[in-house]
Amino acid sequence: MTAPRPPAPAAPRVELLCVGSELLAGQVNTHVGAIGRRLLAAGLRLSRESTLPDDEAALGLAIKGALARCDALIVCGGLGPTFDDVTREAAASALGLRLVYRPRIFDRIRARFARLRLRTAAENKRQAFVLAGARVLANKTGTAPGQLLSIPPQPPGSPSALRRTLVLLPGPYHELSPMFEGQVLPFLKKTYARSTRTEELLLHLTGIPESLADEKLRRLVGQARPGLSFTILSSPGQVDFHAYVSAPTAARAAASLRKVRAAALAAVGAHVLWEGERPVEKVLADELGRRRLTLAVAESCTGGMVGAALTNVPGSSAFFRGSVTPYANDLKASLLGVSPATIARHGSVSVPCCREMAEGVRRLAGASVGLAVTGIAGPAGGTPAKPVGTVFVGIAGPGSRFKAHKLRLGGGRSGVRGRATVRALQLVLQAL
Amino acid sequence: MTAPRPPAPAAPRVELLCVGSELLAGQVNTHVGAIGRRLLAAGLRLSRESTLPDDEAALGLAIKGALARCDALIVCGGLGPTFDDVTREAAASALGLRLVYRPRIFDRIRARFARLRLRTAAENKRQAFVLAGARVLANKTGTAPGQLLSIPPQPPGSPSALRRTLVLLPGPYHELSPMFEGQVLPFLKKTYARSTRTEELLLHLTGIPESLADEKLRRLVGQARPGLSFTILSSPGQVDFHAYVSAPTAARAAASLRKVRAAALAAVGAHVLWEGERPVEKVLADELGRRRLTLAVAESCTGGMVGAALTNVPGSSAFFRGSVTPYANDLKASLLGVSPATIARHGSVSVPCCREMAEGVRRLAGASVGLAVTGIAGPAGGTPAKPVGTVFVGIAGPGSRFKAHKLRLGGGRSGVRGRATVRALQLVLQAL
Repeated sequence: MTAPRPPAPAAPRVELLCVGSELLAGQVNTHVGAIGRRLLAAGLRLSRESTLPDDEAALGLAIKGALARCDALIVCGGLGPTFDDVTREAAASALGLRLVYRPRIFDRIRARFARLRLRTAAENKRQAFVLAGARVLANKTGTAPGQLLSIPPQPPGSPSALRRTLVLLPGPYHELSPMFEGQVLPFLKKTYARSTRTEELLLHLTGIPESLADEKLRRLVGQARPGLSFTILSSPGQVDFHAYVSAPTAARAAASLRKVRAAALAAVGAHVLWEGERPVEKVLADELGRRRLTLAVAESCTGGMVGAALTNVPGSSAFFRGSVTPYANDLKASLLGVSPATIARHGSVSVPCCREMAEGVRRLAGASVGLAVTGIAGPAGGTPAKPVGTVFVGIAGPGSRFKAHKLRLGGGRSGVRGRATVRALQLVLQAL
Repeated sequence: MTAPRPPAPAAPRVELLCVGSELLAGQVNTHVGAIGRRLLAAGLRLSRESTLPDDEAALGLAIKGALARCDALIVCGGLGPTFDDVTREAAASALGLRLVYRPRIFDRIRARFARLRLRTAAENKRQAFVLAGARVLANKTGTAPGQLLSIPPQPPGSPSALRRTLVLLPGPYHELSPMFEGQVLPFLKKTYARSTRTEELLLHLTGIPESLADEKLRRLVGQARPGLSFTILSSPGQVDFHAYVSAPTAARAAASLRKVRAAALAAVGAHVLWEGERPVEKVLADELGRRRLTLAVAESCTGGMVGAALTNVPGSSAFFRGSVTPYANDLKASLLGVSPATIARHGSVSVPCCREMAEGVRRLAGASVGLAVTGIAGPAGGTPAKPVGTVFVGIAGPGSRFKAHKLRLGGGRSGVRGRATVRALQLVLQAL
């Protein structure tokens, strides 16, 4: 591109503050990823995240500090009824605001407990205190309502550049998630990304390590700017390339996304297995359904992970006949009809054994396609010829076809097993 | 206790700063949990965590701010070779220090690439720059060395109260983890928790929701103070209670832990299924091994998850014979010998079907114990009598015993499946 771009307006800054001592003591925090992704899809992005323990003074300082930096601050957690839930008080003291008791909130909490035939504890009264001037966000899946405060309180229609927003959300994800999606995200979009239409591109890549994908996509990713952002997310066996394009109109966003898509496909098109939000098992399920094919699985080193992934898909009984994990070698023979001579001659981690497993399970389950996975997940069992991480994937069908693939996977026992599972599903998809 | 406790010294403050735009755009960060857990076991604890994008200015300010608050700051990520790896520069400018080129580091990087038969990119030279005065932490699993700096630079043996420490670690977990465990944690323990011996208690609870466990343990948890900390971590189907006790001598730590253990058992002893670090599948594996028993599994709604969990355990072939997932009802009959009349009369989600599945897979695989799981994971398939979340677990053996359990599980399709898997393994453990 030769024409200079017009200067882009500064992107709105959204910060996230997670509250809870357990998040600093081992509990994995999945809120950050989920909220970050949802914001991107709305044309916004997280500029920072912090996690604090249940400590009112430290939390008050952190809220004050964040509000001095950002346009919108989302605080998750610490809205429960007990003494260590201190977010309300910390926010009030950070902003110099009163907490106001709202009897209707307590009525709703009591009604909820009554429906569940539980006694309402006096402590739950704390959950009915709200920052003066805040809007109450209904909680349909728990007791603590959320709160949304414009700082300073603004009449509707004020220029958004002047508005700062503080949002308090409950910690449990099944309470936070509908509240964020239904009430907070629409408000943030309207306030900070009103004239923004966002389009999203998601390419699932296979057969390419993250570092190489990164290198090939570098020129494109280097063009990131407000309104155009990229992220490469890796999980075992898979590299996902996300692009988010924002523009003042849907047409311009779509046009911009077409350009990004073309550039991405030019860089890594040979590695794109599918596009869009669906996980590999859902893509495979849809493809099998479209072709009216059924699948059966024989697993060894993955021990059931392939079947588990396939049955993640609601309605999987439409295409998934079942699976067999003959972990002991004698069961490979007795359950799947693998010839003991094949195992004696080639070992159970071999193309011939893999083939007999795939064909055996296909026949046994009466499926259109039989998939077999056999390998050495480690830590023991490796040999110079077949080191740990050697995995064979065999696909029998549809029809008379058979394909075998030899994989060399890394990442220790769990890495090998996870990668083998994803790669096996990808390979069936490619074989159809 | 009636005697007043001596005032405890302030606990050292350890902060974590994670660097990487992808961590704010959807990638789940598991470093925080892992580092938080390891610090607790060493008698330290995370006082705060922040995640920042790859932005040198913002990162420099965050490092400065954190060092003003804490005793030790650990920064993860941003030590790679490319333009968006800015942690070195941000730390140098935050501290007003120079970056010094260390040719030996680049030599090691070149040697590593040569071993892998790869060309060393000129960009990798950036990874050989180190904060003036910092100790280099060898990276055995990647290119970027870590860095450890005492601020201000201190002669060895200075009083630890005066020492602040900045640690820079690479982002990839397989590089960070051995460096943290082998070099950083011992340094932090020596510097900030030298006279501390730590003991850990971990109780795995079953049959009790987190909120009730929390209530029963509240009095004990309320006694937390420096040297005595607690955390309740929940995962589907399981609630784990952790206590960490620190004292100047091992004997006093052990004595203190005995008291904590007695109090915890008085509160929730009836719900403790086992103690210690091992996951449920490892506990079951050890117990089966000890009794020289083998296990085979028939799964329906869990689709392979039980087998997958069991084969997480290295060496699982010693006790795990194999599994069958007859997802289609006709396969329950043809593979496991479940009578079609049983399914017609009671349905496949019933005690009789569950029993025939458990006995069938036990016979088929020649195992001492047969485990069967069948249920309605949803979203479809529920009825008023058997709503979504109804799961039957059947255990045939050892010997002539048979036990069935009816579970009512929540959490949507994935929650029901996850909980059913963990509960099934727990129930086998209880049945032995």
